[in-house]
Amino acid sequence: MSHELIVQKYGGSSVANLERIQAVAKRIVATKTAKNNIVVVVSALGDTTDELEAMALKLNEDPPDREMDMLMSTGEQISCALMAIAIKALGYDAISFTGAQVGIKTDRSHTKARIRTIEGKRTKKALAEGKIVIIAGYQGVTHNNDITTLGRGGSDLTAVALAKALNADVCEIYTDVAGIYTTDPRIVKEAKKLKTITFDEMLEMASLGAQVMQARSIEVAKRFNIPIHVRSSFSKEEGTMIVKDDDKLEDISVRGITCNKSEAKITICQVPDQPGVAAKIFTEISKIGVSVDTIVQNVSHTRHTDISFTVPKVDLTKAFATAKKIAQKIKAGEVLEDRNIARISIIGSGMRSHTGIAAKMFQTLAENKVNIEMITTSEISISCIINQDLSDKAVKALHKEFNLESV
Amino acid sequence: MSHELIVQKYGGSSVANLERIQAVAKRIVATKTAKNNIVVVVSALGDTTDELEAMALKLNEDPPDREMDMLMSTGEQISCALMAIAIKALGYDAISFTGAQVGIKTDRSHTKARIRTIEGKRTKKALAEGKIVIIAGYQGVTHNNDITTLGRGGSDLTAVALAKALNADVCEIYTDVAGIYTTDPRIVKEAKKLKTITFDEMLEMASLGAQVMQARSIEVAKRFNIPIHVRSSFSKEEGTMIVKDDDKLEDISVRGITCNKSEAKITICQVPDQPGVAAKIFTEISKIGVSVDTIVQNVSHTRHTDISFTVPKVDLTKAFATAKKIAQKIKAGEVLEDRNIARISIIGSGMRSHTGIAAKMFQTLAENKVNIEMITTSEISISCIINQDLSDKAVKALHKEFNLESV
Repeated sequence: MSHELIVQKYGGSSVANLERIQAVAKRIVATKTAKNNIVVVVSALGDTTDELEAMALKLNEDPPDREMDMLMSTGEQISCALMAIAIKALGYDAISFTGAQVGIKTDRSHTKARIRTIEGKRTKKALAEGKIVIIAGYQGVTHNNDITTLGRGGSDLTAVALAKALNADVCEIYTDVAGIYTTDPRIVKEAKKLKTITFDEMLEMASLGAQVMQARSIEVAKRFNIPIHVRSSFSKEEGTMIVKDDDKLEDISVRGITCNKSEAKITICQVPDQPGVAAKIFTEISKIGVSVDTIVQNVSHTRHTDISFTVPKVDLTKAFATAKKIAQKIKAGEVLEDRNIARISIIGSGMRSHTGIAAKMFQTLAENKVNIEMITTSEISISCIINQDLSDKAVKALHKEFNLESV
Repeated sequence: MSHELIVQKYGGSSVANLERIQAVAKRIVATKTAKNNIVVVVSALGDTTDELEAMALKLNEDPPDREMDMLMSTGEQISCALMAIAIKALGYDAISFTGAQVGIKTDRSHTKARIRTIEGKRTKKALAEGKIVIIAGYQGVTHNNDITTLGRGGSDLTAVALAKALNADVCEIYTDVAGIYTTDPRIVKEAKKLKTITFDEMLEMASLGAQVMQARSIEVAKRFNIPIHVRSSFSKEEGTMIVKDDDKLEDISVRGITCNKSEAKITICQVPDQPGVAAKIFTEISKIGVSVDTIVQNVSHTRHTDISFTVPKVDLTKAFATAKKIAQKIKAGEVLEDRNIARISIIGSGMRSHTGIAAKMFQTLAENKVNIEMITTSEISISCIINQDLSDKAVKALHKEFNLESV
């Protein structure tokens, strides 16, 4: 008898309280039949992770990463135990495991560990015994048996990596939205749910601000070609399939629009226009552990130039202080910061073979009197940094202009 | 250089909130010097364990033991991580470990596991590196890597077992009271703190309701002769030393009085007075995992007898249901339950060589119009089951009668 294996991941909002855990437990047992096996990955209950982090920060402004992982990993351990307990109450056999127990081995980069290998033995044994297997998301263990976590959104990665390790037929990501939308339905009420989206498009959308799935997990799904079904844990409705290719989509150039308000901009004015200066600036910034996104260097007519770059808002304070130090050292001018920016991006695999899309985007923004401060492009996306106050207006205009209302 | 090794255990009330964790962290670093090593065992924060249990019981009236251990063990994991984080904030190096990580191997009796071995390697390595080692109490791991817990109060056992495994010089149990008292000071305000108490006396007191330390941990301390210092985490005052023998105590017959309200009584009426009937009853009760304490079979003048026994209140419902089933099967009469009982006990090693103590106890109770429902004795204790409403009165009277106010 051939068995189908389904990996399901339920996010924090799907298990935010005991009633929701019970609802999810019912959903899981409804899926479990004699013909298939189910592995369930759960996130921590609702805001548990934030609460634990807040406690640690009250005790220590700079808590050690290893201890943070020890602390934060408990959230998922609690939810997976409760889920197994809820499933057992429905008369089905379930067993919960920590990341360590199912052999999710990671490197030693605490708080942002990378999975190296997954030992599937214990999981397979439990499945063979007919058990529904519940695994704590977001965590693993080093070869030295220290608990690690995979970074925010890491439960998605756990699910996808398990789907690969166990050779699952499908990986379902349950969340509080019905799937992937052309843009954020809270901004544009005409936003449409996509039936399918490619890994590349999803990856761009996740990187550019769509918060439905963690970017790293999509990379892994893409690398191993694991189809992902993103759907709501509150309805039976089909969600969005994330797949390798979607032939039907050839003609549609723009598939989605994202808006990311989590960045801030730093500008170093009057930077001496000499070789090696940019390298010096960004080496110093990377040394303090801040990742820089877009960098723009203005065309210089004099011996000086302005260099602008974006950093995560949470890192602005330290990045700004470092930028000021560098500016002094390299004899540059003033250093400016701007928290009030948004990154608006249009995404679509079809953009590769279509021309004029960028022009259309810039034209639409211009017509709406939205000034473009910075521009970056990838093979399948174009992003503009604009004033945050205008971002909703810009998203609405672009959504309409690229006909996403009629997808 | 010879190092002293101190094992300290802090109970739930000592780490009930972040302020208390910080206070304990300060206390720990004050004890840590170049000359000694410290291993700290922590319980879960305040009521965490109760809260987790309540969640599980809402999902499942009879939650599976393995999953309960998975759930409940997180409480201690959280507190030990927070303690390490708090100590690091004071500039000292600390590292936290789960029971599994320091190799506390137990049998497979989930929710009441027994420690088999403790692998001291990882702890010793961390101590050799000058770190303060924080270990999650109350938990271990089976050889199959399943998380187990040691039963309520299990953190005491963790501390004592670690003191033995690491060959510690002393084991300090920090709690919210200043030591061991002649009786519960909340009931008798004249209760006195004892300077020393023997393992045997402490064992009786713990078994009979004194909640300062878990009985099993005292057994282990006794077996390996590990001196224990029970003291308050809120003051520097010396507490009570639990030791093997205390010569000075020879003349004092009664050292403490306990009152335990956690039991309930079941009576099976008109049990046919045939060989094997009692065995049948208590075999069935033990099969459902309920431990019976006192058993009394009334003297029988007919062919029928009444059998009464006490069980933990939490197990009353299932024990009562089972008792009713057995009663039908063996053709006994009515089955009665009584939640309103208390066990009053007097304890003292000196009782071995003193006569008339039991008589004095019964006389005192009679004078106070307290009816005795059941009696049990051990070599160093006498217990009476009485009406719970009269228990405070009984404790006060006995405390006075045995001159414990002037210890």
